[in-house]
Amino acid sequence: MLINLSFFYKLLKKKHKNLVNRGKILISFHLFNGKYKYLLCVYCYLCALYDNRHCMDKPVQGFSKLSKDEKIDWIVKTYFENPQEARQTLAKYWNNDSALQKLHDEFIENTITNYYLPLGVAPNFLINGKLHTLPMAIEESSVVAAASKAAKFWLTRGGFRTSVIDTQKIGQVHFMFNGSPEKLHSFFEHVKPILIRDTEHITKNMRKRGGGILDIELRDKTMKMSDYFQLHATFDTLDAMGANFINSCLEQFAKTFENEAESYSGFIGEEKIQVVMSILSNYVPDCLVRAEVHCAVRDLTEEGISGEVFAQKFVTAIQIADAEPHRAVTHNKGIMNGIDAMVLATGNDFRAVEAGVHAYACRDGTYKSLTKAEVKDGIFRSWIEIPLALGTVGGLTSLHPLVKFALEVLGKPNAMELMQMVAVAGLAQNFAAVRSLVTTGIQKGHMKMHLKNILNQLQATEAERKQVLDHFGDKTVTHNAVMAHVEKIRSS
Amino acid sequence: MLINLSFFYKLLKKKHKNLVNRGKILISFHLFNGKYKYLLCVYCYLCALYDNRHCMDKPVQGFSKLSKDEKIDWIVKTYFENPQEARQTLAKYWNNDSALQKLHDEFIENTITNYYLPLGVAPNFLINGKLHTLPMAIEESSVVAAASKAAKFWLTRGGFRTSVIDTQKIGQVHFMFNGSPEKLHSFFEHVKPILIRDTEHITKNMRKRGGGILDIELRDKTMKMSDYFQLHATFDTLDAMGANFINSCLEQFAKTFENEAESYSGFIGEEKIQVVMSILSNYVPDCLVRAEVHCAVRDLTEEGISGEVFAQKFVTAIQIADAEPHRAVTHNKGIMNGIDAMVLATGNDFRAVEAGVHAYACRDGTYKSLTKAEVKDGIFRSWIEIPLALGTVGGLTSLHPLVKFALEVLGKPNAMELMQMVAVAGLAQNFAAVRSLVTTGIQKGHMKMHLKNILNQLQATEAERKQVLDHFGDKTVTHNAVMAHVEKIRSS
Repeated sequence: MLINLSFFYKLLKKKHKNLVNRGKILISFHLFNGKYKYLLCVYCYLCALYDNRHCMDKPVQGFSKLSKDEKIDWIVKTYFENPQEARQTLAKYWNNDSALQKLHDEFIENTITNYYLPLGVAPNFLINGKLHTLPMAIEESSVVAAASKAAKFWLTRGGFRTSVIDTQKIGQVHFMFNGSPEKLHSFFEHVKPILIRDTEHITKNMRKRGGGILDIELRDKTMKMSDYFQLHATFDTLDAMGANFINSCLEQFAKTFENEAESYSGFIGEEKIQVVMSILSNYVPDCLVRAEVHCAVRDLTEEGISGEVFAQKFVTAIQIADAEPHRAVTHNKGIMNGIDAMVLATGNDFRAVEAGVHAYACRDGTYKSLTKAEVKDGIFRSWIEIPLALGTVGGLTSLHPLVKFALEVLGKPNAMELMQMVAVAGLAQNFAAVRSLVTTGIQKGHMKMHLKNILNQLQATEAERKQVLDHFGDKTVTHNAVMAHVEKIRSS
Repeated sequence: MLINLSFFYKLLKKKHKNLVNRGKILISFHLFNGKYKYLLCVYCYLCALYDNRHCMDKPVQGFSKLSKDEKIDWIVKTYFENPQEARQTLAKYWNNDSALQKLHDEFIENTITNYYLPLGVAPNFLINGKLHTLPMAIEESSVVAAASKAAKFWLTRGGFRTSVIDTQKIGQVHFMFNGSPEKLHSFFEHVKPILIRDTEHITKNMRKRGGGILDIELRDKTMKMSDYFQLHATFDTLDAMGANFINSCLEQFAKTFENEAESYSGFIGEEKIQVVMSILSNYVPDCLVRAEVHCAVRDLTEEGISGEVFAQKFVTAIQIADAEPHRAVTHNKGIMNGIDAMVLATGNDFRAVEAGVHAYACRDGTYKSLTKAEVKDGIFRSWIEIPLALGTVGGLTSLHPLVKFALEVLGKPNAMELMQMVAVAGLAQNFAAVRSLVTTGIQKGHMKMHLKNILNQLQATEAERKQVLDHFGDKTVTHNAVMAHVEKIRSS
């Protein structure tokens, strides 16, 4: 067989443009299982090695069916210069207790190891007159420190006051209907009790404990999209986050709704209901919790800044976050630092919480601050109202030993109690961040916390660490300044 | 000393209302360091034990200064019935390698152990003609499985196409100015080169590599809030996420800006600049990446559903997410399942990404879907455009060994390459979720993945696990159905 090699070379260079940019490519042809295959090697200018890993451009078959060992074997051989070393990196993170490791492996598919997030604690949170320690799983260096600082600040100023406003969850069956809306309404009145009845096997346990389906409404959305309607259902899921419960109810609603429509005598010919999808909503503006701090303005006075000046600066900063979306997004991001850290530690789903919270922040058309602040009659007040759909039973709560641990630290709260503590973590984080911003700036505290990470990166010895920590005791830490100082120590 | 005990009892019952609701309280008085203290014990009806933990209502002093052991000691003694057992739970999660453990401990303050998130991989992602395996750190049971399925689906249909639209980062100095805006503009023109000059020591390295400050604008925000102005700066931070770089530049801008204003001859008397705060924005609508899938509608045909019907259902589902914020929030939450899993695995900050993404979703006043879909000329197309400010250098990237591992699996991407792979993870997750929703419903796949978790919760034996997995092979998994089946096995 004759191959026009220069033609192939051009073709392959084009196909593997990214690789070609990295170095010289070499192409060789091989007969493989009766077919010609090409092997593409990249001569890497950086490491001066031929690297034929990139030619493993072949999908892996039946990966999820492989054993954990086989999966790891494929990954380290496909992607690493030194497969043995890569395997050791993964193995270092395995737990010695094989039963515990198996538990964690089975949380998701294709688990290869345990990703460590530091689990820290922030003590001294006075919430409604009672002291709490908040567990936080988070990688960002300043979050736990900021929480602890805010807790300490408010400990002597009355602490945090919280209340749950409502706990209503939402789910929807989205469907298309091309007939008369009046007939649809009649059909809905007819079918509503059947929807409830057909989900009784799903809702039985939840009802026993006092929860269940609160209501089902028919919503006409044809103004937004032709033929589009919803069954909009509300739920009380008590101490469960309730995603599985709600989705199971909704899927049953959809089945019953379509079936009953088939045999409904009121519909004629073309008048058909077509369910598109059934799913809970993570937008839960009526699953709302409030946390607040307040004290006399004069009690805010601290070394270097009077209570009046601080309160004025703080309130202005919050007003700016309300007026300017660029600031509001980062302002709320800081709040979520505290909230997500607790959501993670308590085995809840931070993506669900994040989506609901940010959508709530832009509920009136402009993205705004989730916290407010005011000074009135000599009293400074800052508060947050935030939607939090959390669970303390179900999901990972009884599976992940560290989630159980975190919930025990919190005094085994029910969902409403947890909502309040998590809202406090958010408000505390916001207070600490805004306080830094309007006084010393954010970098001083942040970089002080990050200093140890920089030292680890520079592989500083214990003696070097001590010298650097002493040196930066009263100085602003920057990455370059630390590097320069370590170099200075090393060359002295 | 005489104490009116019944008066105290009432007072304390009121103070500890939450506890009283949990059980009978017993109060005893003790002389302690010369002062009377009360000890409050709760007789818990549930566990039938007296529990005096709740009376440790005393703040802990200097907690952050304690050693890790001392911190843990305080926590387990304060919050646990069985402190020894609690300590063992934490210790089980420590790494044997004490240097590695120390590294992880120092990421944040008050670390007590390592919170495990499963690190999984989803192979077979064909992105711009090249195969990739995506590392994902996530606790939700169906995310990696969904990603793998979407990857497999598109592997034979042309894969994912991606491009970076822009990589501009933003930071702002927020300040108040009570004088003439014209004079402020003149001052800004005068000071702008000085702002750049004064940050040269911070931007030196970044400039060497081709990045740095792109521009600084003066923005008049007095329409939103009286006296409020901004220095709105844009940056190119190359392969760094850039938060520390941007904040350091901004704080220097603020310092220079205020200092120069002091001595500026154009301002008179009361015309003062008061900086409120200086900070980057996580709202980065111009740090944007696009990912797309497309194929002929007929190529979507699969067992049980024609390409035409599937495409129509899929497009309708996306249109619904665009029209209805309740759906859009959950739709985008699903996208973030994929995105955050990769953001975590690559050592980036998921709160920053979440905030920026959701604010982008409501940029035109209504919260909408981040993905789009259409059928045109027989071609089905679905795509995402999403702001992602990510880094592949700095922060945790070179510190966390598993982040290094994840980046190596991805082929050591630069920030722009990583943006594209993460966008793919989001689009893939959305495709898998919407595909399930419009065909089988979400619960079938989700609960199948969760089945192993339920079995772990029920402490099923290997034999029981096998029987249950066989039984539910073709059945819908619900928590109750699994419990019932395990009970049936156990009582047979």
